[in-house]
Formats: sequence, C-alpha cells, structure tokens
Amino acid sequence: MESHIKPIREIHPRVRQIEDVSATLFGESGYYGTSLRDIAERVGISKAGLLHYVTSKDNLLCMVLNDCYDQPTRVNMAVHELLQYDGPVPDDKRLHIPAYFRELATVNEQRPQLVRLFTTMNAEALNPDHPAYEYFRERDAALTEVAYADIWYAPDGVATPEVMMTAYRAMDGVQISWLRNPEHTLLERWDAVERSLFPASIWEGYM
Amino acid sequence: MESHIKPIREIHPRVRQIEDVSATLFGESGYYGTSLRDIAERVGISKAGLLHYVTSKDNLLCMVLNDCYDQPTRVNMAVHELLQYDGPVPDDKRLHIPAYFRELATVNEQRPQLVRLFTTMNAEALNPDHPAYEYFRERDAALTEVAYADIWYAPDGVATPEVMMTAYRAMDGVQISWLRNPEHTLLERWDAVERSLFPASIWEGYM
Repeated sequence: MESHIKPIREIHPRVRQIEDVSATLFGESGYYGTSLRDIAERVGISKAGLLHYVTSKDNLLCMVLNDCYDQPTRVNMAVHELLQYDGPVPDDKRLHIPAYFRELATVNEQRPQLVRLFTTMNAEALNPDHPAYEYFRERDAALTEVAYADIWYAPDGVATPEVMMTAYRAMDGVQISWLRNPEHTLLERWDAVERSLFPASIWEGYM
Repeated sequence: MESHIKPIREIHPRVRQIEDVSATLFGESGYYGTSLRDIAERVGISKAGLLHYVTSKDNLLCMVLNDCYDQPTRVNMAVHELLQYDGPVPDDKRLHIPAYFRELATVNEQRPQLVRLFTTMNAEALNPDHPAYEYFRERDAALTEVAYADIWYAPDGVATPEVMMTAYRAMDGVQISWLRNPEHTLLERWDAVERSLFPASIWEGYM
C-alpha cells in the first residue's frame, strides 16, 4: 500500500462520498466487520455501482487511508521540507517538538471519525494478511525516520528520537482514551501529556 | 462486565483450554470476526459442547478478559494493598513509578497473545454495543483512580497523576508497535520511554 503525505488532488464527489461512508463504517466495525453491501446501501448505490468506483474492498481501504487520513497538513509539509534540507539545519529553522505534537493533536481533534478509523485499523492490521498491514509497517518506518532526523530543536542532553517516539506512542494511547470518553477534549488530554513529556525545568525556551 | 484484579481460583482444564484458544482468536480476528464455530473447531468439540461451558459468546469474552488478562500480579497486589492504607502512606512504603511501569512491561513481555487480545479489544470496544465496552470504561476509571491515589514516590514538583496517565497511554501505544514489529522487545522499547518520561535530572533517586 502506497503512503503517506501527498499533494492534494481532485477527487470525484461520488468517490469522496464513498470514502467518507467507508471511513465511518471501517472505523466502527473494522475492515472484516464491514461489507461492500453495507457501504453501498449507506451510499445509496448498488454493489456493482460501488465496485465501478473502487475496484475491490482492499483497494477501497487503501483509498480511504490515503485520501482521507493522510491529508497534507502544515506541520507535515514543514517536516517534509526540512528532510530535503541540504546540509545541517540551522537552529532557527529547526522545528519545536512540543509544538509539532500539539499541532497533530489540534488536527486530530477536528476529525474524530478518521482517528477512529486509524485506531481500529492500527489494531486490526496487526494481522499480516490484513490489507492495511503494509501501510502501518511503512507508517512506523516513516515515523521512525522523522524521529531520528536532525531537524528538531531540543535542549542539550535530550535524546530527541526517544522523546519523539514516546510522544507518538502516547498520542496513539491518548486518542483511544479520548474516543472512548470524549468528555475531555483531545487537546485537554494532550496538555497533561505535554507537561509530563516536556517538563518546564528542561524544556523552557524549547516549547 | 465485572473487573479487574481478583484472587486466583480454580479453573476447569477444559475451560482453560477454551479460554486460551478464544484469547488467540479474538486477538487475531476481533470479537466480530471470530465465531463460536471457529473456537469449537480449534478446541475440538461441538458448538453445543462449547456453549455448555461458556453460555454465550459475550460471556466467553468476559471470561477471557477476567480469567486470562486480569491475572493478579505482584505489582497490582502492592497497589491494591496501599489503596487500603489507613491514613497517609509513609514515604518508605510508597511505590516507585518507573519501577511500577517496568514491571507491567516485564509481565506483558511474557504474554504477547494476551497483549494482542487487549489491543484488539481496546479498539473494537469503542463501540458502545461491544460486549467489552463497559469493561474498558471501568478499566479506564480504575487506572485513573490508581494514578490519582496518594501512594506514589515521586520528586517534588512532579504532577504524579499526569505522569502516570501519560505512562499508561504510552504503554498502550508501545504495545501496538511491539506487536507489529517484535524485532525489539517490549522492554527495549520501554527503556526509551522510561528515559523520556523519567529523565535522570529530575528522577534520580526516585527510579
């Protein structure tokens, strides 16, 4: 499965509608628990009509993850640009780690249905025969590359990749608890993580 | 669904076998993706024979989570005991937070199949009509109670509940990445989290 961040392109309105419905149903009942018939019914077309647009159920999941979940965001664009930087990145161009994760939380706060899709697929796709298995393997590799890249602005003595990976893992866990109990917003939950992971006594001036 | 830590009790060997098989299948394919017929076949009994032991599929999942996943561990017993403490807990009886999480990781390292079950159910049971929905709601409430209890030994100025909740969430996320890619052990992965969450400059003497 191809990934991750890609330029915005035109998507047929019918395809967009199919993807939206599929994101919700896959998120709620899983890939195995959702049939093409369920999706076609909710969209209001026949199963043959649906297959005309999506080819197969595997491909549909791939489309949903790529078109819906992996939207280019400002912060991802900034990371992408710095990864291409020629030579060592000067301090004033480096990205601030707490600000980066806060922006991820801000984006995801606005799209609970897609976070739900991500969370459900993340667990289901532990199966090597799941259609999103490769997608999540590649995603892990891509996050690791970003965490280890020399593009972050952090206090001396902090092991940047370890802090980055811990923050990614904490985000996965926080999103599950937020989806289960949305009384507190994702950002409220992330505030507490931020204070724990980036204590002011170490991170002042680097937030 | 009743929870969480309870005394060890006798379990019929056939029931134990059914629970083991069910833990594996529910973990791999989810609750909705596993049928009683699949389980009966793998155990080598009829579906009617299976139902004699487990009553229903809902009840079977409840049994698996309670009998297999929620085993009393040394560290959970210690927490439970301190929660009953009469009056303020003296410093020398308090539990060390990094040691507590390291022990959770050590226990889970030994039981990947059950961590897989937990991870899969954790996401699937976001659905309010999932049979483990209440189990995970209660679990979140129980973890929050433990995090906020005044039983932890931590440096002055550290917001203990926030650090505890962050560590629980990071554990959820780390477990998923470990199950997906077991090249690094759970404890190796937890080492990096530990160094990030409990930096020596703050936590020396409190590990």
